Formats: sequence, structure tokens, C-alpha cells
Amino acid sequence: MISGKTAVVLLSGGIDSAVASAIAQKTNHELFGLSFDYGQRHRFELEAAQKVARGLGLDKHVIFPLNLAQFGGSALLGSGEVPKGRTEREISSGIPVTYVPGRNLIFLAIAVAWAEILNADAVVIGAHTADYSGYPDCRPEFMDAFQRAANLATKAGTERRLIRIWPPLINMGKAEIIKTGAELGVDFSLTFSCYDPDAQGRACGLCDSCLIRKKGFEQAGMADPTIYQ
Amino acid sequence: MISGKTAVVLLSGGIDSAVASAIAQKTNHELFGLSFDYGQRHRFELEAAQKVARGLGLDKHVIFPLNLAQFGGSALLGSGEVPKGRTEREISSGIPVTYVPGRNLIFLAIAVAWAEILNADAVVIGAHTADYSGYPDCRPEFMDAFQRAANLATKAGTERRLIRIWPPLINMGKAEIIKTGAELGVDFSLTFSCYDPDAQGRACGLCDSCLIRKKGFEQAGMADPTIYQ
Repeated sequence: MISGKTAVVLLSGGIDSAVASAIAQKTNHELFGLSFDYGQRHRFELEAAQKVARGLGLDKHVIFPLNLAQFGGSALLGSGEVPKGRTEREISSGIPVTYVPGRNLIFLAIAVAWAEILNADAVVIGAHTADYSGYPDCRPEFMDAFQRAANLATKAGTERRLIRIWPPLINMGKAEIIKTGAELGVDFSLTFSCYDPDAQGRACGLCDSCLIRKKGFEQAGMADPTIYQ
Repeated sequence: MISGKTAVVLLSGGIDSAVASAIAQKTNHELFGLSFDYGQRHRFELEAAQKVARGLGLDKHVIFPLNLAQFGGSALLGSGEVPKGRTEREISSGIPVTYVPGRNLIFLAIAVAWAEILNADAVVIGAHTADYSGYPDCRPEFMDAFQRAANLATKAGTERRLIRIWPPLINMGKAEIIKTGAELGVDFSLTFSCYDPDAQGRACGLCDSCLIRKKGFEQAGMADPTIYQ
């Protein structure tokens, strides 16, 4: 470590959090990875998160058990079907059934707690809205509001020691994110995007997340290393 | 149920959340209790939370496992000693070592998620600062900031369906809280306040929380049913 800066990064196993991590490393942040086992039906993403954490050379990676599935309320938590084969127009209209109530609110809150204990400078999150997937908790105005709440909630905040909520991709589109990641040496074969993989962990190729990923690689002019069903 | 109003209430097993619950019930809210098994050394409070939930006649009470202790960083989570026998001046000066980083930020975030799934009107929290215990995440300005973050994070918020962050005790002192609870029929013998009970679950009588409780009953002119060591 050259700079002595540290950050907690929310690692989902997907492209966005991997690229956000690489950006934070590029600016000399030592990273502590945080993933959640929150009852998601696409639990292969946790294996991907572990691979990404190793690929990036993180010192520490915590997988935090969080039983949100007991509350139900989301197709990603097993209540209802994951939509398939939607058009771009359908994907970009409204909040999808894969919305998980309070997800980034909870993930960021736990990340801030850990960051405060580590005396870290930032919490890095791969959220963005340029390819708007309809999740309200990925919007910049939410990030700003959460920053304020975190400042007021914490001892660090009362001491004017900022734990920066840092979404480095917030204004980027998927193709730009992929190109940036490629320049920074991110190994996309370690990442996983599918909401509804088969028992062998192969991506469906048809859920919103797969479709956004495919289009991103296409627009970036790069090959997607994902093995689809 | 007369009104059809519902709320999630954060139940710690202490006086404040019991009285906050009774106030919400008085205004015809059906309550869903939420407690956290977060590695607190004073785990007897979870038994108290269950007794309080039964005493109030809640339909449902969830104890949510949340392994915050793995991050360390608080005397309440086993890192360091709980201070004993402090003067009022010591108690009211600064943030104590029993501060748990991000606690109310995390608890409120999970409560909002459940409230959104339940289509509930409010999240009730017993926080107050009149007997200022030094916790930044009990301040009204934090509650306001969190309300805004929750509105922006949730689908409910985008639909202008408010999940109100409701701290009914926010401007009350301990004696006033105890008197109000007594008027509403709260059975204080079910509640538990101590940070550091003995193996039999008897309160120490000397930690900040015991001292604030004792003084509250004294000022309210009422007997404290707690059995102290």
C-alpha cells in the first residue's frame, strides 16, 4: 500500500462491482470486499464474487449472511418468476419484479459500519443508471441522501471524518464500464451476471441482467466470455 | 384492527421500544416486531423483546440474525469493557464505547425493507436524545436524513407512498417516557435495560443504561421492577 487509503467495496460478482473495484485500486485504495448471502436465487454470483476478490488480490473478503428471503417480496428472492426475453423498452420501463426492497440501503448501511470500524475512507459501490434497470436505489440522488444519513449516523461523521459513499460508475453506460474494466485488466471471465442460471451455473442469456450484459459487450466491440445455456 | 394501519417496530427489549410500541398501538397501528440478534453481549434483551412482544399482543415478531460482531468495534459486541458507575456528566459527554457503528442505520434499513414488503405505513423506533446517551444515530437530524434516503431507495418512495420513520419518543426524557408507558399499560417488568447482566440475567445496576433507567423511574416517582445484582 502506497497511499494508506482504504475502502470497503460491495462485491456482487458482476461486472460493475469488479470494475468499480479496479478503479478504486487504480487510485491506490486497499480494498475490503463485502458480499451478501441474502437468499438470492442466483447464488452462483457468490462464487463469482469470491473469484473476483481473488482476481483483484483483495486482502479480505467477507460474505455476510443476511436472511432477507424470510420477508419475501422479490423475484430474486424466490417470490415469482424472473422475466425473460424482454425488449429494451420493457427493461427500461418502471421498476422490475427483480427489485429487492431496501437492498442497497441495507448493503450500504452494513458497509458503512464496517468502514467505520476499519477507519476506512470510502465505501465503493458499482451502482449506475445510464442503462437504467429501474432500481431506485441505484440513483445518484439516493447516493447523496444516503451519504448525508451515514454522516449523521456515525461517530466518524460527528468527528468530520468522511466515509465517502463512492459510486465511480454512476454516470457510465455498460459499454463504457466494460471498456474501462478491460483497460484496467479486469478478467470478465470471473464475473457472473445472470439472475436465473441453471443447476450447472450457466447463464440463461434471457433475463434483464444477461441482456444488458450481452448488449454492453456488443457495444464495446468485445467478446463476452460468459458460457450461456 | 380498526384503522388498517400497520407498522414495523424495532423492539430491543428495553423501555423505549416498549413505550414507542404502545403509542403506535394507541393510534391503531397493527405492529410487526423486529429484533436483531447482532452479537450483543447483553443477549438477555432478546428474551425481554420476546416477552414485550407477547405482552403487547403483537401478531408477529421476527428475531433477525445479523453478525455485526465479526467486525468488532464496540464494547457491546465484546470488544472491551462496558463502563460502570459513571457520573451523569461522564455519561452525557461524548460518544461512549458502547456505541455500535451503524446500528440504527442498519436496523432502520432492514425495517424499511420489511415495511415495504408488508405495505406498512411506518417504521417505529424508540430513539430519543433528551437523556442524551451520546449515540449519533438517535438524533432527530439523523431520523430526517434517513427518511429522505429511504424515500429515494424504495419503490414505495417513487410511488409517493410514504413509509414514515416514526420516533415517537424523540423529544421526551426518560421519566416522561416511563410515565407515558405506565399510562398506556406497559408492563415494565417485561423490559430489560442492562448492557452487562450476570449469567442469571440480573442487571448490573452500574452501566450507563441501568443508571439512566434507575434515574428515570426515580424522577417519575415510580418503582423500578428490575432485579439488580
